[in-house]
Amino acid sequence: MIIVLKPDCSQQKTDEFCRLLKDNYNVKVNTWNGVHSTVLGLIGDTTAIDIDYIDAQDFVESVKRVQEPYKKANRKFHPDNTVIELANGVKIGDGSLQIMAGPCSVESEEQIVGIAKSVKDSGASILRGGAFKPRTSPYSFQGLKAEGLDLLKEARKATGLPIVTEIMKESHIDMFESVDIIQVGARNMQNFELLKELGKTNKPILLKRGLSATIEEWLMSAEYIMAGGNNNVILCERGIRTYENFTRNTLDVSAIPIVKSLSHLPVVVDPSHASGKAWLVEPLAMAAVAAGADGLIIEVHNDPAHALSDGAQSLTPAQFDKVAKKLFKLKDALSREDD
Amino acid sequence: MIIVLKPDCSQQKTDEFCRLLKDNYNVKVNTWNGVHSTVLGLIGDTTAIDIDYIDAQDFVESVKRVQEPYKKANRKFHPDNTVIELANGVKIGDGSLQIMAGPCSVESEEQIVGIAKSVKDSGASILRGGAFKPRTSPYSFQGLKAEGLDLLKEARKATGLPIVTEIMKESHIDMFESVDIIQVGARNMQNFELLKELGKTNKPILLKRGLSATIEEWLMSAEYIMAGGNNNVILCERGIRTYENFTRNTLDVSAIPIVKSLSHLPVVVDPSHASGKAWLVEPLAMAAVAAGADGLIIEVHNDPAHALSDGAQSLTPAQFDKVAKKLFKLKDALSREDD
Amino acid sequence: MIIVLKPDCSQQKTDEFCRLLKDNYNVKVNTWNGVHSTVLGLIGDTTAIDIDYIDAQDFVESVKRVQEPYKKANRKFHPDNTVIELANGVKIGDGSLQIMAGPCSVESEEQIVGIAKSVKDSGASILRGGAFKPRTSPYSFQGLKAEGLDLLKEARKATGLPIVTEIMKESHIDMFESVDIIQVGARNMQNFELLKELGKTNKPILLKRGLSATIEEWLMSAEYIMAGGNNNVILCERGIRTYENFTRNTLDVSAIPIVKSLSHLPVVVDPSHASGKAWLVEPLAMAAVAAGADGLIIEVHNDPAHALSDGAQSLTPAQFDKVAKKLFKLKDALSREDD
Amino acid sequence: MIIVLKPDCSQQKTDEFCRLLKDNYNVKVNTWNGVHSTVLGLIGDTTAIDIDYIDAQDFVESVKRVQEPYKKANRKFHPDNTVIELANGVKIGDGSLQIMAGPCSVESEEQIVGIAKSVKDSGASILRGGAFKPRTSPYSFQGLKAEGLDLLKEARKATGLPIVTEIMKESHIDMFESVDIIQVGARNMQNFELLKELGKTNKPILLKRGLSATIEEWLMSAEYIMAGGNNNVILCERGIRTYENFTRNTLDVSAIPIVKSLSHLPVVVDPSHASGKAWLVEPLAMAAVAAGADGLIIEVHNDPAHALSDGAQSLTPAQFDKVAKKLFKLKDALSREDD
Repeated sequence: MIIVLKPDCSQQKTDEFCRLLKDNYNVKVNTWNGVHSTVLGLIGDTTAIDIDYIDAQDFVESVKRVQEPYKKANRKFHPDNTVIELANGVKIGDGSLQIMAGPCSVESEEQIVGIAKSVKDSGASILRGGAFKPRTSPYSFQGLKAEGLDLLKEARKATGLPIVTEIMKESHIDMFESVDIIQVGARNMQNFELLKELGKTNKPILLKRGLSATIEEWLMSAEYIMAGGNNNVILCERGIRTYENFTRNTLDVSAIPIVKSLSHLPVVVDPSHASGKAWLVEPLAMAAVAAGADGLIIEVHNDPAHALSDGAQSLTPAQFDKVAKKLFKLKDALSREDD
Repeated sequence: MIIVLKPDCSQQKTDEFCRLLKDNYNVKVNTWNGVHSTVLGLIGDTTAIDIDYIDAQDFVESVKRVQEPYKKANRKFHPDNTVIELANGVKIGDGSLQIMAGPCSVESEEQIVGIAKSVKDSGASILRGGAFKPRTSPYSFQGLKAEGLDLLKEARKATGLPIVTEIMKESHIDMFESVDIIQVGARNMQNFELLKELGKTNKPILLKRGLSATIEEWLMSAEYIMAGGNNNVILCERGIRTYENFTRNTLDVSAIPIVKSLSHLPVVVDPSHASGKAWLVEPLAMAAVAAGADGLIIEVHNDPAHALSDGAQSLTPAQFDKVAKKLFKLKDALSREDD
Repeated sequence: MIIVLKPDCSQQKTDEFCRLLKDNYNVKVNTWNGVHSTVLGLIGDTTAIDIDYIDAQDFVESVKRVQEPYKKANRKFHPDNTVIELANGVKIGDGSLQIMAGPCSVESEEQIVGIAKSVKDSGASILRGGAFKPRTSPYSFQGLKAEGLDLLKEARKATGLPIVTEIMKESHIDMFESVDIIQVGARNMQNFELLKELGKTNKPILLKRGLSATIEEWLMSAEYIMAGGNNNVILCERGIRTYENFTRNTLDVSAIPIVKSLSHLPVVVDPSHASGKAWLVEPLAMAAVAAGADGLIIEVHNDPAHALSDGAQSLTPAQFDKVAKKLFKLKDALSREDD
Repeated sequence: MIIVLKPDCSQQKTDEFCRLLKDNYNVKVNTWNGVHSTVLGLIGDTTAIDIDYIDAQDFVESVKRVQEPYKKANRKFHPDNTVIELANGVKIGDGSLQIMAGPCSVESEEQIVGIAKSVKDSGASILRGGAFKPRTSPYSFQGLKAEGLDLLKEARKATGLPIVTEIMKESHIDMFESVDIIQVGARNMQNFELLKELGKTNKPILLKRGLSATIEEWLMSAEYIMAGGNNNVILCERGIRTYENFTRNTLDVSAIPIVKSLSHLPVVVDPSHASGKAWLVEPLAMAAVAAGADGLIIEVHNDPAHALSDGAQSLTPAQFDKVAKKLFKLKDALSREDD
């Protein structure tokens, strides 16, 4: 950590502050005097230092971290890729391409089993489906809830596909015991109480990036889960909020290589929510795979026009089949290239 | 709601769609044919219509709401200002200026009682203080928790000031029973499960705007609470996330008159979090009052340099006293003007 | 164009306004009465209507365009792709992948000729290089200017590669007569005087997207050039400004399929400026090609560490060679897929 | 400037790099070794160092400026406020409140003279009016151009009010010789060629902040003008682009105190463009004055509904009179407070 002091900070204050830093945080402090300012360099483990505490000093001009504030999620300390293996042997993060597919909301047994069979035939290895739905409006359909979870399990039984579905409060964790991957939605990325509780389980967690979360904040949310002992975190880029309003969100495709550089965790991409438009799913999914994503999560609905939520961004099974074929071919071509 | 169909939508499809809209949503549908597109106008209560459902139709080019999607929070249907009265008779939303002040985190009885007395002397009518703290890092101080709540009550007993403090999960609602105003933090603005539970209480709720929430989404979150039966919502603008990185957030001062125009709910402003810098609190607080805010929530700490969290943006009691005096004088001048 | 009137707009005002619209703009006006508002639908050519004029009426609640405000750049009216052919037969927009490569700034004959030969060998078909450099600081190197243009021509003579370079003011247009593609930088995307003058030439124009331009504004800037008679516009996505600060800009990869859907103009991508980091150029370029870009513009410098500007994002010739090979292989794989 | 090297940077590379920095930039370099990284501290004048050059080194992890990159605009080196005095004795930046008012576009002699008289009566000290208009669409009204300038001079003759109007290209500078304040629009804030030419004049320049310019970039654009020898720069905050779409832009009210802290230049605020809505002009103008703005620039039109551009945000003369009265009363109250 590097601290720049204000030009008018006295020698006495500087000395006091250095002593305080050493005593409180067990770090070494190097000092050098610039033309206008004095600069302090802290050496040691600075993750416990609250950067706001430093910034609070009225004689501090600015502070900069040299070390990232996350440890367990940091590739520097865990150079090997984390690979998450599911019950059916599917591995996420091992260099393969895994596709999670299914409807935004589970609506009926017929619907979810039908879609599950269809997406499995198209190559999807994981079934997605919402049972508890976070909706902007209290007057919108909020999901089938517990019944939806049961239907997902039926679909799993029928197809062998592991299931991923969103949790919305920590008191539901028991209910999600038999879910294969628990999803934390973008709006709950900094619901720290939920993250802490999920950290006590050993379930794979699909952690969506918040609507306006920086990559560092996103990794810090992964760190919350991992700090509790659960290292099975899958990061999911789903578009960020920008001024551009043609799409619902702006897919931050650069987040894929950046996360893979900063962290050892796998990264999947949600092109459906990133764009909000079915016709953009294919090009965004292709871009994500080309940029190195470990997987995709794609909305598929047998009847998007009558979907109870988010129909606009759902592919039909036939469209999905075509897109999945292209994605696997692309992945093949990329893999050959790497040989 | 206005729906623009794509140029190539057939007459048959158009007719079917109009029938479906009438049947499902009990609305009247007007049609007119433009040069390139057909436009449908829906008349009736369209708040229950999922705009995504409409957008999902592959023959729909775009959709636009005419009516706002919130009802209980909407000034159109409740022209009079909502005024929230606290135990000590303090009213928020009645044209007066109320200042909530106190430390980011409660740290000790001495600290919180001392600050409470001091801010009361300076004119604050409500005591703020964090017991449960949402922190970006799992390694940062997370608040004194239940003990912090107890200390806040001690400070209330000592000064008579009602207290406002942040809740982080719905299972804590009972614990917050004796809190005067329950704060929902920016990161939980769309924690819908929490909002629903708070809707079942009759506590005043201070609902902070999410980091990148639109004004409409913010009002929809208020609607979540109100839909449950709790109309005591106070909206709190605390800066939004933009590309500008000199300040932690960008205070959206225009949100004040906009919210007061769209809704009947009171609006307060948090200049401390909006800027993240103590020296900006005064000018931003002045701007907020001049723009019509019903109140302010300001961080005050007896020793900001040693505050356990967010010290950078805290005023000392002496600084706060000076700022509060200026704010009340400004409010006086503005009130005289309105006469 | 659809206009929603305020609930309290009188019948008389409505009638007057409709008459005014018909008279001034030669459009047909349809009216229908909703529960709370009256809605007007305008039929005819509304591109000449200033949407702000409509919004100015104090009895207007909101306005929405149904038709896009651009005509010449609009795919609706020009369904076929625009293909731009350069002197050496290179075609942009015909389904092939064209790579423009070269240094940020031209520095010397040896440098630019050397790089030109090298990137040509690696498969680049166009040479890029800055002679006039827009720099944030007046104290930074501003380019070799006219001398830089001469050196680019030398490099063209030595390699046969057409050249693309940035113009910064309209009085330089004559000087750019022999340039093959004139680049308009992001900061000048709405320098309308420059766009108008470029519209009077018949040069291919590489129009970079502004730092915070919407896709519609970008297309309107293309329309400025085309309105003058020059249809040879190539759009260049180069990252947009968002709150995320890990990268200099955020590549908006979805802009590629969106622009190709809304417009018939070719789209190329600048992964170097989008990321500001050399190690991100490869994954972003791969993503751009997978998403359907017609070309790329990539910074290559023989000695990035000593580059006079923007070295951080430049590849060495050896790195570029490796990246270009991967890009062409990817393009091949994608083309086979389409067969 | 502080440079953090990557963990794997060899001692030899570090030494070479330090030598190169000392030789090329005449700075002293301090080194210290952290646990994971080596950090270099550069002492001396670093404004000439291209931060991208440093960042380009593949062994550099990150770079941070300690000194601001602007010198002439920097309050550190020029502690006293710059006060700009106009022909009629009006001073901007001396602690007074100056209001510039007038129509978005000059339309006729009658219009501009009428408005000029009216706003003068209401207390405005400067007349604004657009002769050359930057418009997003090539099909929109582009201003009366030279004729508009003549009409502004007529209005100045009739009222004695100095005039401010926007320039759009450097070849027009001669034509603007008799204009009192030359405005550079938001879209031209980084039209560096224009800035350089304006730097050679001694005209007061009203420099609007770019749509997505950081405060530092804005000050760097002021530096461009000042580097040429013209110190008469007035900064104008006019709202920045954010994801919020209720208003056209988001007024960054915190920019006022920040700019006044970083720089000695005066700051005025444009509440008309910041909001795009007439009813928001008053609260935003009040906020700006309360936050310390030196002036305001407000659109006034005798007939906003028929204004040829930007009518939506224009006040009528009667509305302006009421707003101006409130603003001056507020300023009075604030001034008394400061005594």
